[in-house]
Amino acid sequence: MGSSAVEKLFSRPLPVTAKFAEREERKQTVLITLEMHSITSPIHTKELVVRLTDETDLFFLYTLRLNEEDFQSLKAQQGLLVDFSAFPQRFVDLLELCLQEQHKESPKFILHLVSSDKTCASLNVIETNPFKHLTHLSLRLVPGADSDVKKYLADCLKLLKDQYTSLQTKLETTEAELKQRLHQTQQ
Amino acid sequence: MGSSAVEKLFSRPLPVTAKFAEREERKQTVLITLEMHSITSPIHTKELVVRLTDETDLFFLYTLRLNEEDFQSLKAQQGLLVDFSAFPQRFVDLLELCLQEQHKESPKFILHLVSSDKTCASLNVIETNPFKHLTHLSLRLVPGADSDVKKYLADCLKLLKDQYTSLQTKLETTEAELKQRLHQTQQ
Repeated sequence: MGSSAVEKLFSRPLPVTAKFAEREERKQTVLITLEMHSITSPIHTKELVVRLTDETDLFFLYTLRLNEEDFQSLKAQQGLLVDFSAFPQRFVDLLELCLQEQHKESPKFILHLVSSDKTCASLNVIETNPFKHLTHLSLRLVPGADSDVKKYLADCLKLLKDQYTSLQTKLETTEAELKQRLHQTQQ
Repeated sequence: MGSSAVEKLFSRPLPVTAKFAEREERKQTVLITLEMHSITSPIHTKELVVRLTDETDLFFLYTLRLNEEDFQSLKAQQGLLVDFSAFPQRFVDLLELCLQEQHKESPKFILHLVSSDKTCASLNVIETNPFKHLTHLSLRLVPGADSDVKKYLADCLKLLKDQYTSLQTKLETTEAELKQRLHQTQQ
């Protein structure tokens, strides 16, 4: 059994233009989550996990798992100039640029999710200018199989159940506290 | 497109003895839900849907879909004396007996979930007496495929999200109301 630690690096909803084969292009708000998974046993490895989900479409799930080795081929292929340890922060920086630009009429940085078949999709970070669209980064994501979506939804459900329980406790505490204060004031 | 209405007939947690091949027999609390689905178009049909789930194991899902035709073979096979329209209530009666007996040291009515392989499981309603175990009813259920579990979890998540939102509203209303009363009393 290996042990692993998860460090959350980014988790924000972002506007994405989805271009899927045989479907009309559409704007979609996608929650993009970046996590660094550190596996310490049997050997120490790190994996960057990128996950795209959509609160309004619970079956929407795209994932990328990128380890050091995968990154080396991505780096060569896209001519990146950073190493694996610096890459997550550079990616977050690009996403932050998209966030800053999201409410502008002509945002300078945008995200495209492009897929020609059901086996994969590319998330592209694009800089728009009047002359050309520059792709800063293009990541290949895999759509979640039923078993992945099932696990993801179970995790969401567990989390929400905990939140529900805390909220219930908070309601009871608030009610009791305020009623007590009310009682004291009335005396 | 067909339209359908769902009538909930029963939904209660019940103790079940699970006997699965290559696993130790164990007691499990299972939520048993009975629903009558009425499909009105293109032809009017009814289907009894029995669902077994477990709050502590989100991937646990067993289902039976029983229409009039399926019921006729179940009736012949198990020598039942009721017709399809009366069957759901008889089944609920048996489950109620199990509920009444659940906290007794030697419950007279118990439920077994028996499975020898991964393709199906039988839910048996058993009357125990010192001489013999009598099987009142034995229903063959199908374990949920990943896609079924995925749909089921998405439904749970939607429901819980709604409940969470209502609870949040209730917290805000309660807080505002009590604070206002406190404010009035203090003046």
